Amino acid sequence: MTETSMKIKLPVACFLVQIILIILFGVLVEYDVNTDAKLWHAKVGNDSNYENEFYYRYPSFQDVHVMIFVGFGFLMTFLKRYGFSSVGFNFLVAALALQWATLMQGFFHGMHHGKIHINVESMINADFCTGSVLISFGAVLGKTSPVQLLVMAIIEVTLFAVNEFILLGPLGARDAGGSMTIHTFGAYFGLVVARVLYRPNLDKSKHKNGSVYHSDIFAMIGTIYLWMFWPSFNSAITAHGDDQHRTVMNTYYSLAACTLATYGMSAMVCHEGKLDMVHIQNAALAGGVAVGTAGEMMLTPFGSMIVGFLAGIISVLGYRFLTPVLESKLKVQDTCGVHNLHGMPGVLGAIVGAITASTATRDIYGDGLADVFPAVADGTYDASTQGVRQAISLAVTLGIALLGGLITGFILKLPIYGAPPDTACYEDALYWEVPGEEESNGELATVKTEEAEKLNG
Amino acid sequence: MTETSMKIKLPVACFLVQIILIILFGVLVEYDVNTDAKLWHAKVGNDSNYENEFYYRYPSFQDVHVMIFVGFGFLMTFLKRYGFSSVGFNFLVAALALQWATLMQGFFHGMHHGKIHINVESMINADFCTGSVLISFGAVLGKTSPVQLLVMAIIEVTLFAVNEFILLGPLGARDAGGSMTIHTFGAYFGLVVARVLYRPNLDKSKHKNGSVYHSDIFAMIGTIYLWMFWPSFNSAITAHGDDQHRTVMNTYYSLAACTLATYGMSAMVCHEGKLDMVHIQNAALAGGVAVGTAGEMMLTPFGSMIVGFLAGIISVLGYRFLTPVLESKLKVQDTCGVHNLHGMPGVLGAIVGAITASTATRDIYGDGLADVFPAVADGTYDASTQGVRQAISLAVTLGIALLGGLITGFILKLPIYGAPPDTACYEDALYWEVPGEEESNGELATVKTEEAEKLNG
Amino acid sequence: MTETSMKIKLPVACFLVQIILIILFGVLVEYDVNTDAKLWHAKVGNDSNYENEFYYRYPSFQDVHVMIFVGFGFLMTFLKRYGFSSVGFNFLVAALALQWATLMQGFFHGMHHGKIHINVESMINADFCTGSVLISFGAVLGKTSPVQLLVMAIIEVTLFAVNEFILLGPLGARDAGGSMTIHTFGAYFGLVVARVLYRPNLDKSKHKNGSVYHSDIFAMIGTIYLWMFWPSFNSAITAHGDDQHRTVMNTYYSLAACTLATYGMSAMVCHEGKLDMVHIQNAALAGGVAVGTAGEMMLTPFGSMIVGFLAGIISVLGYRFLTPVLESKLKVQDTCGVHNLHGMPGVLGAIVGAITASTATRDIYGDGLADVFPAVADGTYDASTQGVRQAISLAVTLGIALLGGLITGFILKLPIYGAPPDTACYEDALYWEVPGEEESNGELATVKTEEAEKLNG
Repeated sequence: MTETSMKIKLPVACFLVQIILIILFGVLVEYDVNTDAKLWHAKVGNDSNYENEFYYRYPSFQDVHVMIFVGFGFLMTFLKRYGFSSVGFNFLVAALALQWATLMQGFFHGMHHGKIHINVESMINADFCTGSVLISFGAVLGKTSPVQLLVMAIIEVTLFAVNEFILLGPLGARDAGGSMTIHTFGAYFGLVVARVLYRPNLDKSKHKNGSVYHSDIFAMIGTIYLWMFWPSFNSAITAHGDDQHRTVMNTYYSLAACTLATYGMSAMVCHEGKLDMVHIQNAALAGGVAVGTAGEMMLTPFGSMIVGFLAGIISVLGYRFLTPVLESKLKVQDTCGVHNLHGMPGVLGAIVGAITASTATRDIYGDGLADVFPAVADGTYDASTQGVRQAISLAVTLGIALLGGLITGFILKLPIYGAPPDTACYEDALYWEVPGEEESNGELATVKTEEAEKLNG
Repeated sequence: MTETSMKIKLPVACFLVQIILIILFGVLVEYDVNTDAKLWHAKVGNDSNYENEFYYRYPSFQDVHVMIFVGFGFLMTFLKRYGFSSVGFNFLVAALALQWATLMQGFFHGMHHGKIHINVESMINADFCTGSVLISFGAVLGKTSPVQLLVMAIIEVTLFAVNEFILLGPLGARDAGGSMTIHTFGAYFGLVVARVLYRPNLDKSKHKNGSVYHSDIFAMIGTIYLWMFWPSFNSAITAHGDDQHRTVMNTYYSLAACTLATYGMSAMVCHEGKLDMVHIQNAALAGGVAVGTAGEMMLTPFGSMIVGFLAGIISVLGYRFLTPVLESKLKVQDTCGVHNLHGMPGVLGAIVGAITASTATRDIYGDGLADVFPAVADGTYDASTQGVRQAISLAVTLGIALLGGLITGFILKLPIYGAPPDTACYEDALYWEVPGEEESNGELATVKTEEAEKLNG
Repeated sequence: MTETSMKIKLPVACFLVQIILIILFGVLVEYDVNTDAKLWHAKVGNDSNYENEFYYRYPSFQDVHVMIFVGFGFLMTFLKRYGFSSVGFNFLVAALALQWATLMQGFFHGMHHGKIHINVESMINADFCTGSVLISFGAVLGKTSPVQLLVMAIIEVTLFAVNEFILLGPLGARDAGGSMTIHTFGAYFGLVVARVLYRPNLDKSKHKNGSVYHSDIFAMIGTIYLWMFWPSFNSAITAHGDDQHRTVMNTYYSLAACTLATYGMSAMVCHEGKLDMVHIQNAALAGGVAVGTAGEMMLTPFGSMIVGFLAGIISVLGYRFLTPVLESKLKVQDTCGVHNLHGMPGVLGAIVGAITASTATRDIYGDGLADVFPAVADGTYDASTQGVRQAISLAVTLGIALLGGLITGFILKLPIYGAPPDTACYEDALYWEVPGEEESNGELATVKTEEAEKLNG
């Protein structure tokens, strides 16, 4: 039994966590009025089924679901020998995180006589929280064992729920698409974890930290799905009617503008004016991140496009110039460059949100003001205060993410999770039974397995 | 002209079947009130378009559609040299089956003055029936010609419709997600066909019965889409409102719990504690199968998670220990392991459905009882009788599947369909024009074609 | 700096175009009543949010969106060394085209006090127009620089909007799924561009103009998504209720019949009765194209299946016999065979639409006549006139497409866009930083880069 073997560690972790989750669901979770047979029929009789929350949100939920499992999962398959782990650990971590998030968010969003009431909105929120964990996963991709990832998920989901509660509760912030709660939080949390888990000898696996031709095309599956469904992501939990509709449209145009900026910048900064797949796969998405907060507001397509355009530029510049510095100077080995895709665009999104909020007036929003800024609409405070609260929310998010990542990093550093050695990072064969590359390469596959065994030993 | 050539066989089969289908549609099929311009406008005037069945079910339909064509199709691309056939024959068989299913189900679900009325629900049901055929396809994958598959589809769809009619009609069973009608039926039908088509010398193609690195990632596309959209599958034809909503949620949590169980079990039973892609690709889906019957009931997330957890465990154990025995002792060569993904979890789902049904009370369901158990709600029989009828339905399904598969197997054994020789199973080149693997391998491709010609000869 | 370098050309094109677009959006574009907070709440108060256009069309929009970005993008990845460009340029061109289309279509569909009002329908229409550009891209695939494609997109979108305006405005034609406006227009426009850009020495890149095993499977991702979501495409902008519902169903059955015809024909016309991936990837979709006009009419599933069946046959025959002739005799190098998938089936669809329209009666459509043929319903002209107008629309479309393509071709021929030399067509390495094929092929990748540098030089 080698140190990195998952034969005992992973079953123990999975079964223990899952059994606890089942018990907690048994004790705490109930159908809400939209999903309980008795309550729903008592409410609407046999008519008006179309008013069930299901029909307003399920299509959006499914798009978000695709982003979480296909989008994030395949985006990370760009590594030449880490495709199984990228999709597979993404799958495992997400399956855990969404359950734990249901409980944590249910707890903080308000219990009903000691019970958590759930419906499609809970599922969307759970998927959102999961997304944040997967962003952090991107920062440590290739350098962690699945057990480490499960532990990280449990802690991060918990802190996510705390941060989300502070922002949406006491601070009264708006953040429907999660520029702050999801992207900024997930990115900086993951970056600090990566910093604490810094591997000075990671260059031993350097030849595996790159793509091959087909793996880059697999990764584009992830990119394109994230890009297409981002409008659903940002609008999934906004208010019914114009709010969902407007958020979708703002996000659509922001992403389009971001894409042109990304291609232009990529050709400008790269060797010989060629396009770099890393930029296309990632920076073209920054426009979705950057309208995560303001997307539901009356940002206008014009405003959205400006934001998307800036986000694309910032993101490509980050990949080209900042990521190498982060690694060499700050010792942050950010595998997927989440700082460029989620970190900086998330902060940009928070700032845009604060500015947009501070300019909200009843003249612009009419009676729709109550949907977007309820506290402004009912006179609890004015729009500029809303803007200040948005800005404070960004600071709180950064604080909790940095501190939480720090603690989590040290917990993950304990030598009990079967983390990969420096020589076997970015390598599926450590945790997976891996077949050969091609039909004719039976021997190659055997060689690789032997190599992996050596790495284990 | 070699024996396995499709130059005459396949065109004859396709054109003959398609022309008959067109004629039958011309004679028998009509728009229903939701799809006929005159009838719909006579019903609702120009208002209330939102009450058209379309808006309740079309998003679910599209998710199911993705499962049938992408989910099943790509799940089977795991074989190294059978990707064209996996996706391509899946496509062909499904395109036929959904047309024939529309007629067969329309016939059994009740004609209107000699006409079959169709709408989005017909399309969902046709896709469901198609799913059952594709499950059987998984059992014989790599060992059949496309003409054999078309013949199998025609017979299986017919028997599926008969079985479905007996269950949902006279027996009054509930099976919205098809644990019995789709999964149990499709699996055992396919297993018996595989048994009858047993090839003692299949080891001649053994080196092709496996995956390569990229083919396993293609297969994960199938897995992830099936996993994500399974909530839509189980809820697609449940009653409007709380029923669809609840079914989605139960399935979501069942699958999540199943996934953790799958990863835990896989690491536990595999060599050196590594994860096996076969388990992840398949067993993680068993949670969807196993709540196919009870998903629409008040199973609660707690109950769903227990069911999913058990399904994942059973399924991995099946792959690890039962499949080899099935092959060596019972001579069932189950290529995709459908017994582990659809067979056992389907039976589990039927049992869970019977138990859950037998505990239904008006106290729990309120007026929603009429949606889920109409016969119990109107007093035709009590809940425990419903449970017994559910159990009988499982037995009927098994009986029709086993007998139908037996007869079908012998029909498919006739030496007229161009079945592949033992030496050319799991090989695309027999039925497809196949290019080389890589740019530089032009010669390799030629060699392969020559090899295929030898196999044909 | 080589001639094909994008270091300056692409950034200039992207930034210039994007900044102009942002300014024009700022000046011209406004939320409509469905998306503006104030207007929507003034209209419906806090009730009836389910009547927001969003809920009728957003699921369809997302399906269309997937077709544009995944469907078209991946369909073109069949080339062995052009996967980055296929998905990546598709992405870039689409991101530009949808923005420009919003403005052009908004302009022609009618301004409101000098402003363009947008909602989800604008987004669908913009995606539709983008689809037309991507069809043309298919004809010139592998032979153009990204800057050429951007220029083509700008001109084609403009002419698309003009043609669409003439058809749907003055001519009063119906073409919900775009057999004429999208498919016929895009195909013949692209074919003429390809003709003007004819490369007599293209055989220098001939060895790259083909697929490898995995690239054909990537392409099937595109095919299957197009096939599955085509019902959403044809129905996305039809009237609410029965119209959307009926269009979906007609398209579903047309595609199914088309698929069987395609498989039968492919085996019939190919070497040794084997199936050709090119046919399956493309011809199986012709059934969706061919009911693009008549799909919303009372075509019946019977009629739809006949149309789909014919479309599949025509399309396979086109690939097998017509495409080689087009290239050798007419000097049209149609990379993807868009003439077979979009050209001929589009014309077929237009004819079917004209015939179906001319037989429309109030007896068949009831009060639904006003939805499908408003001018016939209100007595402006009779059904046979509608049919004639449909036929004229086809002629107008062909005229504008051919003339527009001609002019565009000559504009694209200017030697300023960095078009690839004859020796480097169908090759990603000219415009992309390309990694090696396999882990062990580090040297190969280097060699390829050097080769590309030579090509540039």
